Amino acid sequence: MKEIVVPSSSHTYSVWIGEGLLKNVSKYLQKEYSSIFVITDDVVEKLYLQTLLESLPKVHKAVAVVAAGEQSKNITTYYRLQTEAIEAGLDRNSLIIALGGGVVGDIAGFVAATYMRGIDYIQVPTTVLAHDSSVGGKVAINHEQGKNLIGSFYPPAAVLYDVDTLATLPPQEIRSGYAEIVKEALISDKEAFERLLQVNLHDLTKEELQEHLSFGIEVKTAIVTADEKEKGERKFLNLGHTLGHAIETELQYQLLKHGEAVAVGLLFSLFVSEDLFQADVSFSKLYGWLSDNGYPLPAEMLDPEILLKRMKTDKKAQAGKVQMVLLKDIGQPTTAVLDDEQIVHYIKRFRERLVRG
Amino acid sequence: MKEIVVPSSSHTYSVWIGEGLLKNVSKYLQKEYSSIFVITDDVVEKLYLQTLLESLPKVHKAVAVVAAGEQSKNITTYYRLQTEAIEAGLDRNSLIIALGGGVVGDIAGFVAATYMRGIDYIQVPTTVLAHDSSVGGKVAINHEQGKNLIGSFYPPAAVLYDVDTLATLPPQEIRSGYAEIVKEALISDKEAFERLLQVNLHDLTKEELQEHLSFGIEVKTAIVTADEKEKGERKFLNLGHTLGHAIETELQYQLLKHGEAVAVGLLFSLFVSEDLFQADVSFSKLYGWLSDNGYPLPAEMLDPEILLKRMKTDKKAQAGKVQMVLLKDIGQPTTAVLDDEQIVHYIKRFRERLVRG
Ligand SMILES: NC(=O)c1ccc[n+]([C@@H]2O[C@H](COP(=O)([O-])OP(=O)(O)OC[C@H]3O[C@@H](n4cnc5c(N)ncnc54)[C@H](O)[C@@H]3O)[C@@H](O)[C@H]2O)c1
Ligand SMILES: NC(=O)c1ccc[n+]([C@@H]2O[C@H](COP(=O)([O-])OP(=O)(O)OC[C@H]3O[C@@H](n4cnc5c(N)ncnc54)[C@H](O)[C@@H]3O)[C@@H](O)[C@H]2O)c1
Ligand SMILES: [Zn+2]
Ligand SMILES: [Zn+2]
Repeated sequence: MKEIVVPSSSHTYSVWIGEGLLKNVSKYLQKEYSSIFVITDDVVEKLYLQTLLESLPKVHKAVAVVAAGEQSKNITTYYRLQTEAIEAGLDRNSLIIALGGGVVGDIAGFVAATYMRGIDYIQVPTTVLAHDSSVGGKVAINHEQGKNLIGSFYPPAAVLYDVDTLATLPPQEIRSGYAEIVKEALISDKEAFERLLQVNLHDLTKEELQEHLSFGIEVKTAIVTADEKEKGERKFLNLGHTLGHAIETELQYQLLKHGEAVAVGLLFSLFVSEDLFQADVSFSKLYGWLSDNGYPLPAEMLDPEILLKRMKTDKKAQAGKVQMVLLKDIGQPTTAVLDDEQIVHYIKRFRERLVRG
Repeated sequence: MKEIVVPSSSHTYSVWIGEGLLKNVSKYLQKEYSSIFVITDDVVEKLYLQTLLESLPKVHKAVAVVAAGEQSKNITTYYRLQTEAIEAGLDRNSLIIALGGGVVGDIAGFVAATYMRGIDYIQVPTTVLAHDSSVGGKVAINHEQGKNLIGSFYPPAAVLYDVDTLATLPPQEIRSGYAEIVKEALISDKEAFERLLQVNLHDLTKEELQEHLSFGIEVKTAIVTADEKEKGERKFLNLGHTLGHAIETELQYQLLKHGEAVAVGLLFSLFVSEDLFQADVSFSKLYGWLSDNGYPLPAEMLDPEILLKRMKTDKKAQAGKVQMVLLKDIGQPTTAVLDDEQIVHYIKRFRERLVRG
């Protein structure tokens, strides 16, 4: 069992990573709660809900299930969860448990942040990607016009990461989650990046998995500790996300998983960085690794004008201009504000590069 | 011009109270904002929007108008405001200005709290009641099943209280606002309470008004400074609100104004306190003053069973039981958890008392 401690402006919380956690949730609760409300999705429900419920203390419990997938991170589902929380009789001393991937974590966290002006919640992530979403206190839902546009900073009371649950994850989800780990390496640590590119996602051991998750969470923890509210360096965690979010929104969260869209975005960031800074930031290496590991890199969906428009509603945008995270070197992120023409130009050239293969 | 400084866990902000503020808003802005989004209601719009807009710095501006009244504090209006904010191009360096009463302040504040995980906002209150709602950082919208059930703690960047705007307030709104000032006196200061009961709301001078508003804000500031997140004494500010909110929700925010419903709730709290603590906490005096000043005290709408059910979804409820703020003496608030039977019993007797007159 590994513990990583995360400070935040309101309180300090622990991320526990290991095996068998789901069977022992009670042990990790720091308070007595008047009732517990579990939010999960309909895939995770079938796999892990029962185990979780059996491991909880004997207080009043209720469960709410959302449809699996990004589409659930919307205002209607959010309001329905609020209604179910009221009907379940949750009060200010109740606990919400988010059992699932980043979608469940983000929406359940936002419900907790705003139910009666905020109650405790615990993240129980069950995807690789959720190593990222469960730590750092960002919670949100999407607006039709952009991802995560409505949300709060609201850290959990704890994160319980049971790696046993990852055994049932389909390959596409493993891929999606590893894009964020690659991102964390790219912004912080050249050697870690080189080592990651040795990995073949089709035959990961449990030890490797746990090691990579811990690495990712440690990188993230260091950054959010230094800059909780994203006034500065926390922005670097958005490497790959400006284009990634634009693609996701444009595809209405179909076809590509979040991390797969981010993978395209990461590659684009390296592409722009190499041109803008005349530096080698491993575009070709990452391109090779992504291809080998089955990441979709679909050139045809990269419409420059449409993506530009989407990129401008990104939360990092400044006075109507696109702001991107770029790399001066691996481990040396920076931000740059780009003109509309530059963005269009780079997307076109990037698309050509992908078509060439 | 009077300045009251309010500390909060995230930042310290000033409440400015005085004349002519609306014409000089620029002077009080502490930052350069990329754009400004004014949220107001359709009554205040006609009276004060133009003056405000003329006093703002020359950056991109947009305005959103909600229908006047409590009904606007709902999820649909909230989401529409988010959409308008996106369409106006607001980014993380934009400012929201809430121009209006508590309704506008609460919903605009909640939009600011959750737009891109939180941007700056300024309260420009234009009602007496909003002396209470604009200070302390509580922002919220209503759920069909209860008032302010969805919200955050999110303090404003500043509060600019221009007392000139109060000249156009109808008598009912003056009454509504004064109920909160009476509440602030009841929980803190016997002499202030006695002095307030000398006042006739029909012929208030500007000086009296400014003095009472400052008094109310100072009481509130002291309490929220000691207990921002309502773990303890901030609860006392809910004196009169358990029944008050139940009445409001039951009436679907028609017929009675917030403060008028609170006035009934205050009287009920004194009624219960006198019985439970065998103390004289001026029930009769307050009853007389409320009657003299035209507060509606309608006995017929006090259905014990229905109100009990509503009171149980109050945010202070604990494990399904009603928690009320009561007074051991004036200036000595306390809380008590009451059985369902007690609540029903007291509402019945209170109703009889009102019928007797
Ligand atoms: N808050 C943050 O800081 C942050 C950071 C990164 C990403 N995110 C958000 O996270 C979301 C993506 O998270 P995600 O990729 O985990 O998506 P997800 O929650 O949709 O999970 C992916 C799929 O895997 C299924 N699943 C989950 N656990 C499983 C398991 N153990 N076995 C089998 N199937 C399982 C789910 O039902 C779902 O269909 C996005 O909405 C993104 O915006 C948030
Ligand atoms: N956040 C808090 O801490 C807190 C505290 C107390 C009350 N509240 C909330 O405040 C709300 C009530 O506030 P309110 O009483 O100001 O209601 P309101 O905002 O609805 O204003 C009352 C009416 O007066 C009109 N009006 C506003 N300013 C005017 C002016 N200068 N001249 C003429 N008409 C004017 C409005 O258009 C409206 O019709 C409730 O929703 C309550 O829950 C919040
Ligand atoms: Zn991500
Ligand atoms: Zn009130």
